[in-house]
Amino acid sequence: MKKVIKNGTIVTASDEYVADLLIEEGTIAAIGKNLPEDGAEVIDATGLYVFPGGIDPHTHLEMPFGGTVSKDDFATGTKAAAFGGTTTVIDFCLTNKGEPLQAAIDRWHAKSQDKAVIDYSFHLMIGEINDQVLEQLPSVIDDEGITSFKVFMAYKNVFQADDETLFRTLVAAKDLGSLVMVHAENGDVIEYLTKQALANGQTDPIYHAKTRPSEIEGEATGRAAQLTGLADSQLYVVHVSCAEAIEKITEARQKGIQVYGETCPQYLVLDETYLEKPDFEGAKYVWSPPLREKSHQEALWNALKAGHLQTLGSDQCSFDFVGQKDLGKGDFTKIPNGGPIIEDRVSILFSEGVKKGRISLQQFVDLTSTRAAKLFGLFPKKGTISVGADADLVLFDPTIERVISASTHHMAVDYNPFEGMNITGEPVSVLSRGEFVIREKAFVGTEGDGQYIKRQKFGTSDSLPMKTSLQVEV
Amino acid sequence: MKKVIKNGTIVTASDEYVADLLIEEGTIAAIGKNLPEDGAEVIDATGLYVFPGGIDPHTHLEMPFGGTVSKDDFATGTKAAAFGGTTTVIDFCLTNKGEPLQAAIDRWHAKSQDKAVIDYSFHLMIGEINDQVLEQLPSVIDDEGITSFKVFMAYKNVFQADDETLFRTLVAAKDLGSLVMVHAENGDVIEYLTKQALANGQTDPIYHAKTRPSEIEGEATGRAAQLTGLADSQLYVVHVSCAEAIEKITEARQKGIQVYGETCPQYLVLDETYLEKPDFEGAKYVWSPPLREKSHQEALWNALKAGHLQTLGSDQCSFDFVGQKDLGKGDFTKIPNGGPIIEDRVSILFSEGVKKGRISLQQFVDLTSTRAAKLFGLFPKKGTISVGADADLVLFDPTIERVISASTHHMAVDYNPFEGMNITGEPVSVLSRGEFVIREKAFVGTEGDGQYIKRQKFGTSDSLPMKTSLQVEV
Amino acid sequence: MKKVIKNGTIVTASDEYVADLLIEEGTIAAIGKNLPEDGAEVIDATGLYVFPGGIDPHTHLEMPFGGTVSKDDFATGTKAAAFGGTTTVIDFCLTNKGEPLQAAIDRWHAKSQDKAVIDYSFHLMIGEINDQVLEQLPSVIDDEGITSFKVFMAYKNVFQADDETLFRTLVAAKDLGSLVMVHAENGDVIEYLTKQALANGQTDPIYHAKTRPSEIEGEATGRAAQLTGLADSQLYVVHVSCAEAIEKITEARQKGIQVYGETCPQYLVLDETYLEKPDFEGAKYVWSPPLREKSHQEALWNALKAGHLQTLGSDQCSFDFVGQKDLGKGDFTKIPNGGPIIEDRVSILFSEGVKKGRISLQQFVDLTSTRAAKLFGLFPKKGTISVGADADLVLFDPTIERVISASTHHMAVDYNPFEGMNITGEPVSVLSRGEFVIREKAFVGTEGDGQYIKRQKFGTSDSLPMKTSLQVEV
Amino acid sequence: MKKVIKNGTIVTASDEYVADLLIEEGTIAAIGKNLPEDGAEVIDATGLYVFPGGIDPHTHLEMPFGGTVSKDDFATGTKAAAFGGTTTVIDFCLTNKGEPLQAAIDRWHAKSQDKAVIDYSFHLMIGEINDQVLEQLPSVIDDEGITSFKVFMAYKNVFQADDETLFRTLVAAKDLGSLVMVHAENGDVIEYLTKQALANGQTDPIYHAKTRPSEIEGEATGRAAQLTGLADSQLYVVHVSCAEAIEKITEARQKGIQVYGETCPQYLVLDETYLEKPDFEGAKYVWSPPLREKSHQEALWNALKAGHLQTLGSDQCSFDFVGQKDLGKGDFTKIPNGGPIIEDRVSILFSEGVKKGRISLQQFVDLTSTRAAKLFGLFPKKGTISVGADADLVLFDPTIERVISASTHHMAVDYNPFEGMNITGEPVSVLSRGEFVIREKAFVGTEGDGQYIKRQKFGTSDSLPMKTSLQVEV
Repeated sequence: MKKVIKNGTIVTASDEYVADLLIEEGTIAAIGKNLPEDGAEVIDATGLYVFPGGIDPHTHLEMPFGGTVSKDDFATGTKAAAFGGTTTVIDFCLTNKGEPLQAAIDRWHAKSQDKAVIDYSFHLMIGEINDQVLEQLPSVIDDEGITSFKVFMAYKNVFQADDETLFRTLVAAKDLGSLVMVHAENGDVIEYLTKQALANGQTDPIYHAKTRPSEIEGEATGRAAQLTGLADSQLYVVHVSCAEAIEKITEARQKGIQVYGETCPQYLVLDETYLEKPDFEGAKYVWSPPLREKSHQEALWNALKAGHLQTLGSDQCSFDFVGQKDLGKGDFTKIPNGGPIIEDRVSILFSEGVKKGRISLQQFVDLTSTRAAKLFGLFPKKGTISVGADADLVLFDPTIERVISASTHHMAVDYNPFEGMNITGEPVSVLSRGEFVIREKAFVGTEGDGQYIKRQKFGTSDSLPMKTSLQVEV
Repeated sequence: MKKVIKNGTIVTASDEYVADLLIEEGTIAAIGKNLPEDGAEVIDATGLYVFPGGIDPHTHLEMPFGGTVSKDDFATGTKAAAFGGTTTVIDFCLTNKGEPLQAAIDRWHAKSQDKAVIDYSFHLMIGEINDQVLEQLPSVIDDEGITSFKVFMAYKNVFQADDETLFRTLVAAKDLGSLVMVHAENGDVIEYLTKQALANGQTDPIYHAKTRPSEIEGEATGRAAQLTGLADSQLYVVHVSCAEAIEKITEARQKGIQVYGETCPQYLVLDETYLEKPDFEGAKYVWSPPLREKSHQEALWNALKAGHLQTLGSDQCSFDFVGQKDLGKGDFTKIPNGGPIIEDRVSILFSEGVKKGRISLQQFVDLTSTRAAKLFGLFPKKGTISVGADADLVLFDPTIERVISASTHHMAVDYNPFEGMNITGEPVSVLSRGEFVIREKAFVGTEGDGQYIKRQKFGTSDSLPMKTSLQVEV
Repeated sequence: MKKVIKNGTIVTASDEYVADLLIEEGTIAAIGKNLPEDGAEVIDATGLYVFPGGIDPHTHLEMPFGGTVSKDDFATGTKAAAFGGTTTVIDFCLTNKGEPLQAAIDRWHAKSQDKAVIDYSFHLMIGEINDQVLEQLPSVIDDEGITSFKVFMAYKNVFQADDETLFRTLVAAKDLGSLVMVHAENGDVIEYLTKQALANGQTDPIYHAKTRPSEIEGEATGRAAQLTGLADSQLYVVHVSCAEAIEKITEARQKGIQVYGETCPQYLVLDETYLEKPDFEGAKYVWSPPLREKSHQEALWNALKAGHLQTLGSDQCSFDFVGQKDLGKGDFTKIPNGGPIIEDRVSILFSEGVKKGRISLQQFVDLTSTRAAKLFGLFPKKGTISVGADADLVLFDPTIERVISASTHHMAVDYNPFEGMNITGEPVSVLSRGEFVIREKAFVGTEGDGQYIKRQKFGTSDSLPMKTSLQVEV
Repeated sequence: MKKVIKNGTIVTASDEYVADLLIEEGTIAAIGKNLPEDGAEVIDATGLYVFPGGIDPHTHLEMPFGGTVSKDDFATGTKAAAFGGTTTVIDFCLTNKGEPLQAAIDRWHAKSQDKAVIDYSFHLMIGEINDQVLEQLPSVIDDEGITSFKVFMAYKNVFQADDETLFRTLVAAKDLGSLVMVHAENGDVIEYLTKQALANGQTDPIYHAKTRPSEIEGEATGRAAQLTGLADSQLYVVHVSCAEAIEKITEARQKGIQVYGETCPQYLVLDETYLEKPDFEGAKYVWSPPLREKSHQEALWNALKAGHLQTLGSDQCSFDFVGQKDLGKGDFTKIPNGGPIIEDRVSILFSEGVKKGRISLQQFVDLTSTRAAKLFGLFPKKGTISVGADADLVLFDPTIERVISASTHHMAVDYNPFEGMNITGEPVSVLSRGEFVIREKAFVGTEGDGQYIKRQKFGTSDSLPMKTSLQVEV
């Protein structure tokens, strides 16, 4: 059935105007003043922003980690995402060495199928690279539509790949039209510092942060960027948390190297002191990279404002405080890394960024939705409001004031790291391909309605064409 | 009369999609698939890009300079602009010390009235700043809608202002909601080097470049950016030509300082060797800042790609080779500075940027139109294709191949600095507020139809709010 | 009469060893083990360091400033210097516009003659530069032996020169073999901020610091360094106080630009909070550039350690708190700038630098003596302990602990900015050209025994030859 | 027997003066004018420089590499060194994983004993680090006087250590008072590029350079410096060849990190084009890091001049062109890396550095001798001319012009990479502990007279004390 959304203030990564939206067959058919309402369901959006649905490029749903499994799965996780104004997530598919890549992908399909309430896609982890792995990549890209690969520079002896693997992946990505993602921390140094801390009896959550100083995130980020330049490839640095890493990304970009950076809400508004909360509460704030000293927040906001960082991910990876986080009592290395962020990602950036004058409304849309769509091959079906695009829409009331709390959130875990934070602005209704998932703050969607999205190659839209086809005579 | 532009590929700073556009009363009334054509003139745009009309933020039409006057006036200049896909120009209104600002503005109105074929606005030069000048600024902003002020750091004893003037202007701009523009070269050093060159008998055009080294553009740019940071104000650096200046802008932006940079087509594709052309032909390539060594071109392209520079201006200031440029025979300081660029600005960026894979199509639109509209208070009436915006549109055929030549250009001067350059892509038709100015490559507009535009204050749209209202707790 | 200094630990900018020193006719005749003592006065230096006498490259003795005159003259000032282990000072000779340079120099000779107890020389201020001034420079250099010229980038409408003057001085210096010194702060910005502060009723000493932020010292330092590079000349930045300035100096040096930087004890150990002392006591800490936030101290120490700054001056310019500093009550701009530092310069660097492990003993000698001698054409007669050098020597006991206090210092003013500071190490005896000036902590010298020193051209010793004779094929 | 060297121009890292030198029992007993000659052998040094004997901190004598052994051993190598004005070498002792460190050291003693004609010492390679290795280090330092450890970041699967090993070595070095040396290139990237080159049939010597781009030397240098900062330790980067690496070192030093850099003559005067010489001659110029594009030479000279690099090593590792270098015909990875440099190291820096005005005479002495003595615990016995120091002296005629050639050099190999280069200045006579090794250009020494030198801990002389004892309150 057709829908007309009347009189909303439509906001894209570039524009802002009041108009009606006509939705037909799940996509946007027309945008205009006083569009005919004949036969359409009419939704009044007067006084509301109409945003393209958020795209969360960084989630870990139902992910095994350190002997446990992240709590939110594709059902609860995508439901919470929808409440928060997100209509697409891209989850990380972990691989095991030696295993066919398809087996890992199938495992991820099994987890997500019939559960997701919004659309989703996968990134693929690359843990090793050899001729066999290389042979499988074309079908991963062409058949599965997975066009982004993640390499870990940290978690020594677990996920960590060496520089040769990273470099070879970058070269392959260039040839195949995909984007390499890195977790950029120097895992070797962390390994040593961690052993030392434990040997010294430094077992509290704060030592998670102390053993992962920002210098080594800067180091690894710079290293990855330099390797990308050498490979003439493209790189996406996940969860940038510190000034040192931003500096390296900015430098590389001015040299013409295609490096993109993502940060996360937790780094923008929380800081290292949270890890010192008593009664082991610090464990709630254990991420890798860790929360930093407060001064890094200004660097991150400046980078968002200047365009030196391009996206906002959640790095959603939630664990209960009781029963999961507390596995690390007496040994911070046993605390599962991560937290429940998927629901508040969009709202926090609106409230702290737009309302506080740090970024513009257009930048907000670009950071939470459009840029991710473009980098990860979802655009223009996803990530914008334009004729022909999927009607993934958020009706957002910028005046609502609310307080974040685990008692009201929709994620499956027993705490919220932003507990008590005052937020201005809230998604009122959310549509996925033209159908309401959230309506007037109530969930009206259906598990399994979310579709798996095969993504296009890197460089297809509003990005540079692949270097291999570049005829720049520099 | 209503118009429907059918089936064009609509491109904005963010989007790209095929749709119809409905134009009513000079503005865009609707965008959609298969819009009703009843009663409308239908224009088929199949296979064409539909861009928002270009905005040239930097022109000097009929400007007195060095004892002569720039050749293209608001009639020939705006006509040529229209041919090139530009639908708005912002011209620099020069002031004389001691004279009321309104007198200068009135002089500029007199020049432009009844001549322009597209819309236009003015920036205002600030040559001195004192209590009297400060008192006049509110009416300049409120009554004339002039919300950008230019300060010269070069042209000693002519236009050059000292740092106290620049700083005071920055402080005033912050309070008043306007954007300060600078010509950033160290005029004192130029003054000395110029005297020395002439004393040494170095009078050829190439010495224009040799006496204005890139280091001093970098120096002045850095200085202006640092003063902006101190003043907590906002700055727009015109005609950035070199790597040194880019570095300073990028650094400042990462520190959270609001600095924007403009470059021009000549710096992207020409280089210093052009000034050495025999038979005084080098004089055709005399700009300030001068053309640079070829290596700077890569830095400029990288900066456009990375978002470290934000706009493309023409710095249009055209003089005949015979009768004007030749005033400088035997003394390069007498060569009128500037050239005819207004017509090819958009096309060159498309051909060299988009077609050669250096920037995306969306970046192209942002650089030639949208960003200038936003920075200079024209948005969203100008600078985009959205419901409610002025129907300033360019129908652009990306497949046409042509050669730039003075024999075919529409500017009033006897040479073209890009003579012989192969270009891909050309505007076919251009509309200003819904009316054709160029139709199928023929001029169909009317002198005087262009309207003077009063602009909004800085920070009104897709920019940060003014600092004064900023509640960032850093 | 011959002297033998026995068994001292001789320290130079490079060496450290125990030996005897034979002094004949005011110079060092031999260094060795068990030198024959026949007919010589024997001084036992067992357990003492023997340093080359300190060279203070930056003093303002009996200098007119803001309607008063700095209190220490060539008598009290050089006596205090000697107590502190300094055996040569280079004082700044101020010039007036229009006046013949020789007249200014003669004025300075008149002030110093028959007063100094140690040797001295002059730098010359350049306030304007024109053909007449240029014509006088060769005789200033050749006849007076003044081979360093100072340009002020601050003190608008008083000492401040414009960039053309600075640049022209740099070019002249290159041709003439002299070193250009700059006071690097942006005087224009200071002028505006100062007016604003006063207009806002912000008249306390702390506003002296607030109106001279470190950014503008960085800006001016960078500007001067870039002009030096363009001129292919050499530059000495006096009283570097902040991280921003160090960064610019280091950058320039890596580009091959000959830039040297001096800091002063006050910037190493005091900070901005001192200006907030109650009862107008903040006025005691008014220098230009001002004291900075504490974080800059680390940057300064790092720069000394890494060799990124090269010398330590005192910027001695002392005023009584009562009767002079208090001229600025109710208007910080009326506080005479400067303080009494000449006496404690050497000791503070030893105590805070060497004893606290921040710099080596050799670096200490280089910073307080040798490097200044080399840069300013005094070497090897001054600045080292080598055969043939003047016997300007300091016997220094590194174990003495003392407290700095106005009640015990030898400067003519009523306060000491380091009052109460614990210091380890003290000069016990000081010789000037082989004669004791200080003996066992008592003054035994004679006013007028200090000689005026004509200095050699820049680049004569342990410096690069002048660029004009450089045959580097880069 | 006593010796008096008359009237030489004595030059140290700080000084320059004409005097006599008295040598007794192998050390310098006195320095003075007209020293008594009674009973002494008198050597006239009028018109000659007297330098402290050169210290070569980087040699590989008789070193196994790639299936062959470097040609010059401790006999021919030290003889050639002496001819070139070097009186001490520090050779790299290679270790094998699992083997006791003492076994490796004993192997090196066996090689060198009874062969060296000048004094020598060893650095020790650290290939792995574990509790067993850590337990052995104190005796290596205390009993063998080996206070510097080398870690390789390149040569994957051969010498390369991972970052954890490097970091742990840095931490250990801090505690033990030793200096960590790194070969800084990213071996993983080299590994991949090398495999690719060979797979593409790119087997010529030039591909040795192409597969080791300067970016990855910069990357590894920055990484090592950042790890040093984190460990609060000290680092010496061997054979710095490029601008990227210098930038990282300079940056780190300004942050207060103790990083030192060494370059080698080949990087100062040769460039990448030499690897393209026909008939496989390019193999003569195969070093790791490789020769770079010519533009890096200016960066290196600037760094020497500014003090951003501190020493000059030879990286002596000589192979015959016929019979050794040619092992790599058809496969550049089989070319033994290295060349014969030990003999011309000092002369080239004098001729290209001092004579061409790029560095001062004092800098030359510091770079070729003094600084290495200080960093590696040889000072003040070695590395300077001061009372009590070993009489390791070079009588150097700065006016001799000669041409470097394999036909006249004293190294055991069949080519010289500087063949045909014009050099000004030559050592005429060389003394080791007061005895002539070279006299009037003839070898007069004895194999085996060179002594093994146990070195002091890092930080003993003209260096900062160890951090552990540092009481800096930053």
